Amino acid sequence: MNALEQLSDHIAQFSPKGFKLSTHQLEKFFSSKKLTRKQHLLTAGHPCHYLYFISKGCMRSYFINPKGTEQILNFGIENWWMTDYDNFSNQQISQLNIQALEDSELLCLSRSNFDQLIEQHPEINHYFRVILEKRHTADQRRMQYMFTLTAEEIYKHFATKNTPFLQRVPQYMLASYLGMTPESLSKIRKKLMEEGS
Amino acid sequence: MNALEQLSDHIAQFSPKGFKLSTHQLEKFFSSKKLTRKQHLLTAGHPCHYLYFISKGCMRSYFINPKGTEQILNFGIENWWMTDYDNFSNQQISQLNIQALEDSELLCLSRSNFDQLIEQHPEINHYFRVILEKRHTADQRRMQYMFTLTAEEIYKHFATKNTPFLQRVPQYMLASYLGMTPESLSKIRKKLMEEGS
Repeated sequence: MNALEQLSDHIAQFSPKGFKLSTHQLEKFFSSKKLTRKQHLLTAGHPCHYLYFISKGCMRSYFINPKGTEQILNFGIENWWMTDYDNFSNQQISQLNIQALEDSELLCLSRSNFDQLIEQHPEINHYFRVILEKRHTADQRRMQYMFTLTAEEIYKHFATKNTPFLQRVPQYMLASYLGMTPESLSKIRKKLMEEGS
Repeated sequence: MNALEQLSDHIAQFSPKGFKLSTHQLEKFFSSKKLTRKQHLLTAGHPCHYLYFISKGCMRSYFINPKGTEQILNFGIENWWMTDYDNFSNQQISQLNIQALEDSELLCLSRSNFDQLIEQHPEINHYFRVILEKRHTADQRRMQYMFTLTAEEIYKHFATKNTPFLQRVPQYMLASYLGMTPESLSKIRKKLMEEGS
């Protein structure tokens, strides 16, 4: 299955029954991009004019915090959308970096093509509305956890809900995403392994 | 202007030019609710089957953290939507409480009416897509700040972007929302007043 077929299926999955955009309808809006592992898609200080659909691979978005270290904001794998929404919507300079953690393939939708896609196929709003509802729900849950759970509980919860990431993301990056030091995460994993959970 | 007119205007504001749902079209989907100050709209442990549009007043959502104290997740004022999305979407038991901080008026949209509204007026997906895009952007920015900014920077940023809340929300609740103690917030405000900023 090629990337456009994959996107077409994903749109159909979260659209009302019977709605589908064919690869022919989609192809005029999207360009494709291949990244090798560690290659950057976006670097802070540049504008972010694209919304990216990950058809293959694994990506991360991160920024440099005031201490000069990397802080991971999000990960993304197959069938996830990725961008710096703040900049994609407001056309400003990005504070985020987006980088491939594996060799990856993306479909790229520019802001103007996004607007045209919406105008020519307004039914696609349903799809993006559902995707954003899921994102907002996950964001709110993540903030709730950041405020309340212990590091061990945060890791346990992440591990249950996001098993694919455990194999694909280096441990020090996972620690950054979860807001803990690599040493703390290492201790937690060791403890849980000893407990057999 | 009554609540339905207000919602009709808000929908038109974030929809493609020319799209508007009249109050007559909207009224069959919404019920209305008045709350007095301190009254709860939702209590943790109950299901949350509604999406609420705030036409007047000020609300907060919060949960009880493991230390037994209240942690504020969100505030909402006029023209904001409020719910526990996790439960509204997944029809589970809510972990959140939602309470009025002022005498408030709401329009209530049940999950089944939401689905019918979408089905009968699919153009409304555009409106909710835009609203959720703004929410997701704000959530991501908030997480970024939680990871990087000092308490003083967090407060300064909030005060610049959310002036109406400063007058309407008690200081100890603002401290909770910003993830700091009331004492820290009080010190920061005093320092900034002395500096004249």
